Amino acid sequence: MSRKNKLRIIPLGGLGEVGKNMMAYEFGGDIIVVDAGIMFPMNDMLGIDYIIPDFEYLLDKANRVRAIIITHGHEDHIGAIQHVIDQIPAPIYATPLTRGLIEGKLARNNAQHKAQIKTVQAGESSKFGVFTVEYFHVSHSIPDAMGLGITSPAGLVVHMSDFKFDHTPVDGWPTDFAKLAEFSTRGVDLLLSDSTNAERPGWTPSEMVIGPAFDKVFAEAKGRVIVATFASLISRVQQMADAAAKHGRKIALAGPSMVDNVKIARKMGYLEIPDEMIVPIDQALKMQDHKVAIMCTGSQGEPSSIVGRLSAGTNRQFDLKAGDTIVLSSHPIPGNEETISKTINRLLRRGAIVIHDGIAPIHVSGHASQEEQKLLLNLVRPKHFMPIHGELRQLRRHADLAKEVGIPEENVIVVENGQVVELVGKKILLGERIPGDYVFVEGESIGDIDHGVMRERGQLARNGIMLIDISLDKYSGRLLHEPEIITRGFVSPEDAEQLLPEVRKRVMDIIHGGGLDNEKDIVSAVKSYLHQETKRRPMVFVTMSKG
Amino acid sequence: MSRKNKLRIIPLGGLGEVGKNMMAYEFGGDIIVVDAGIMFPMNDMLGIDYIIPDFEYLLDKANRVRAIIITHGHEDHIGAIQHVIDQIPAPIYATPLTRGLIEGKLARNNAQHKAQIKTVQAGESSKFGVFTVEYFHVSHSIPDAMGLGITSPAGLVVHMSDFKFDHTPVDGWPTDFAKLAEFSTRGVDLLLSDSTNAERPGWTPSEMVIGPAFDKVFAEAKGRVIVATFASLISRVQQMADAAAKHGRKIALAGPSMVDNVKIARKMGYLEIPDEMIVPIDQALKMQDHKVAIMCTGSQGEPSSIVGRLSAGTNRQFDLKAGDTIVLSSHPIPGNEETISKTINRLLRRGAIVIHDGIAPIHVSGHASQEEQKLLLNLVRPKHFMPIHGELRQLRRHADLAKEVGIPEENVIVVENGQVVELVGKKILLGERIPGDYVFVEGESIGDIDHGVMRERGQLARNGIMLIDISLDKYSGRLLHEPEIITRGFVSPEDAEQLLPEVRKRVMDIIHGGGLDNEKDIVSAVKSYLHQETKRRPMVFVTMSKG
Repeated sequence: MSRKNKLRIIPLGGLGEVGKNMMAYEFGGDIIVVDAGIMFPMNDMLGIDYIIPDFEYLLDKANRVRAIIITHGHEDHIGAIQHVIDQIPAPIYATPLTRGLIEGKLARNNAQHKAQIKTVQAGESSKFGVFTVEYFHVSHSIPDAMGLGITSPAGLVVHMSDFKFDHTPVDGWPTDFAKLAEFSTRGVDLLLSDSTNAERPGWTPSEMVIGPAFDKVFAEAKGRVIVATFASLISRVQQMADAAAKHGRKIALAGPSMVDNVKIARKMGYLEIPDEMIVPIDQALKMQDHKVAIMCTGSQGEPSSIVGRLSAGTNRQFDLKAGDTIVLSSHPIPGNEETISKTINRLLRRGAIVIHDGIAPIHVSGHASQEEQKLLLNLVRPKHFMPIHGELRQLRRHADLAKEVGIPEENVIVVENGQVVELVGKKILLGERIPGDYVFVEGESIGDIDHGVMRERGQLARNGIMLIDISLDKYSGRLLHEPEIITRGFVSPEDAEQLLPEVRKRVMDIIHGGGLDNEKDIVSAVKSYLHQETKRRPMVFVTMSKG
Repeated sequence: MSRKNKLRIIPLGGLGEVGKNMMAYEFGGDIIVVDAGIMFPMNDMLGIDYIIPDFEYLLDKANRVRAIIITHGHEDHIGAIQHVIDQIPAPIYATPLTRGLIEGKLARNNAQHKAQIKTVQAGESSKFGVFTVEYFHVSHSIPDAMGLGITSPAGLVVHMSDFKFDHTPVDGWPTDFAKLAEFSTRGVDLLLSDSTNAERPGWTPSEMVIGPAFDKVFAEAKGRVIVATFASLISRVQQMADAAAKHGRKIALAGPSMVDNVKIARKMGYLEIPDEMIVPIDQALKMQDHKVAIMCTGSQGEPSSIVGRLSAGTNRQFDLKAGDTIVLSSHPIPGNEETISKTINRLLRRGAIVIHDGIAPIHVSGHASQEEQKLLLNLVRPKHFMPIHGELRQLRRHADLAKEVGIPEENVIVVENGQVVELVGKKILLGERIPGDYVFVEGESIGDIDHGVMRERGQLARNGIMLIDISLDKYSGRLLHEPEIITRGFVSPEDAEQLLPEVRKRVMDIIHGGGLDNEKDIVSAVKSYLHQETKRRPMVFVTMSKG
């Protein structure tokens, strides 16, 4: 099977949002990679810190990877870089702000020396083997984001990473309509585009609507204002700084990623905040409440974030005061709704005023909604369309939109991660499936935790454990002492007092009765007794020694 | 402290939605209870089946409880009845449909003999000691729901449980505006009202909008139609049956609660479905696909429900076919978003067409939105207002709405479960806090699982366990054989092969080195080695026997 004249499009990783965190384009001997981000664990992924894409496919082809192109500086696009460059020593291409954020992140992980980063600008292009990549500007909830025009012998592919058509973005730089129109004139063989909001009708509001909402919050706040958002939401920091300046408040930054990112963005000119506006957090804590605004992380209510700790009363640097106004400037990431609600309730209980996107327009999405997605399709008029950046439900909806605007059904292809798509002879085809799964990162373990381990954790978590230690006399086979029993996550100590004597008695009966005296028999006898008594099934372990 | 002239209002239970599942009103020696429902566990409540309210406050006053009044037949209002009547032998008062659903539920749990149930009708009233309770009709997503006018020597309290102002409900019976106006004329001392949608602007759409949406789904479906909803959403079953009849499909019911509830509601005249429309599921499975509609549970994607099993390919009675249309006719309960999304993606992967409330109006909320909440406040014009049925965030928002419509701030009281409120001398005051917490139900255990157990489960789940069994010679103190090590939920078997020999070696070194030879020292040495190697902290247990 010749791969010579084929463009192979490879969404890497396990399930989750297709092509969101990492994709590869392969033609003949040349490969380019787009993005290298992390995915946040789902609620049933117990103990996991984060997930990185499975890029095993690239490992034996690492020397053919010509470039790793990063479309923008959000975690889900840059967060796995440190893991990827360990195994794929290709140069990274990024716009100045994205580069700054990557460098900051690598430095925090002591990995800055590993990466070779080249700065590119929207409007420029690069040659990578047979590929020519044209960078063009898109507006998103971070400045300096870009889309890619990827030309290979198979034709022109337009890769729209996260974007929206914001006519009045905070940085004044809308998505490059002219470039999209120009691609259209040339003829686009395949468009890949962001499906995040494919179930959302209408047009995503401009970042501009946040200005007046922040203004109102700052005008009404009598105590401190604490604004929480993602550390990479640079334009939100600008809006918050503008509101603070207008209302005579100084800004303090809390949290290392927030401090770093603001420093980088200011240095590079992406944030305009005069020096005199910023005070160190220690100083801010000594100022009058109505003179201070604090910017921090934790808008998703994460227990380990500053807002999470403030809500629990466990923040070291400062405590919440009654009358503080907390602004959670983000929208719940699916799966986080419950944690955020819990955090909001806790903050309210401590006397804070909490402003969240359910009651005030203090956040807008960074992703195009249906009307923008249709506009993109009509601007670019691609021959083929492949929705990316969504789960299957969003991809299917995006595919429906494409059909609605007139792209023939047979020219729309919906795949999930690990399914190769081929563009060949101006046709689009399914290629092979490559192995791929979630790669769980937990502490120092990268990929060591598998689904078997996860299933065991689920079992441990649902019912807890019981350990029974038995010592037998090696000659008589009789018990040297009563069995010792430990439980965790099964019953409360008071209930254990009732239940365990009977378990102990039954174990002794089994042993003294003879016959059943191996660990396995005891385990199953105890399990069935526990199930009969409690209708629950803890994991039971028996250790038996004969001395 | 005299309780003689005080009305005490007691939202029972732990955190969660205030007064949602169970409330008590106490005046002198008389108590009435309103509702006895369950709460669904949050994602971090590992292993829990459901939660019942903590009604310990009532236990030593059980003989003073004159009535348990149930406002409507949803699980979060009736689900705990079997537990409550075990300890509080008071008669239950409910409308005919609610009564039927309670009886069905008790029968499924073999508890029908325990309950003494009395039927009441909207428009009637009952005397319970000093209390006079007037029942009036409200529209909600189940027929035969009611609100209560509760008169005691302290004045008139209006208790609005779940409601909406639907002008065109499926059963044609809107909320009783006239009764509310009449209460207002008499003078309402305190209004308690449903805050579920207090963050939602506007007016909740009528149930009627679902009709055309169902019609479209049935018109377009080529294969089977499978509609999932809550078994207690009786009016949704009617709408589905109407659409099926119009499009020449027979209905089959799957799942015991769905079968039971439909049987009860039909028998009592709350569902109008001709006999010839309903076929047994076995028969439906043999009919042509376009002649069949199946109604089942599982709209929240619960893994154990029919839809959950269909999505995983583990349903026993029937499998999904490519071309089946699945309608998830509900809105995600907060915390379930991730599970539902996963289920939708799985159904799509199996070739089903999935219609959910994100893409079509096949569900509407059963709860009043802001404009309805304000209308209620203006209709009733209560002297005092206490928002119920919401978490703190919704209660606060509802309190703000009350202030907006002119109720003085000092007449609005926001409390959480366990905080007694007193109405005395036409004033509203905070009473004492009563102890109260979540009561977790898991298998046969009711309240045996406490927060300590839950914390242990969290620890087990995050990092797993390691068991080390050591046998020493009782004379020499030397190992009889190498330590045996078992792990669960910690590392995969391949990684264990690398890690465990070193753990074994270190344990042996410790023992042979002398000095450290008790379990505790070994546990801490192993823990610190594992943390150093993996940056993770599994629970480590050592059992040591000397033989």
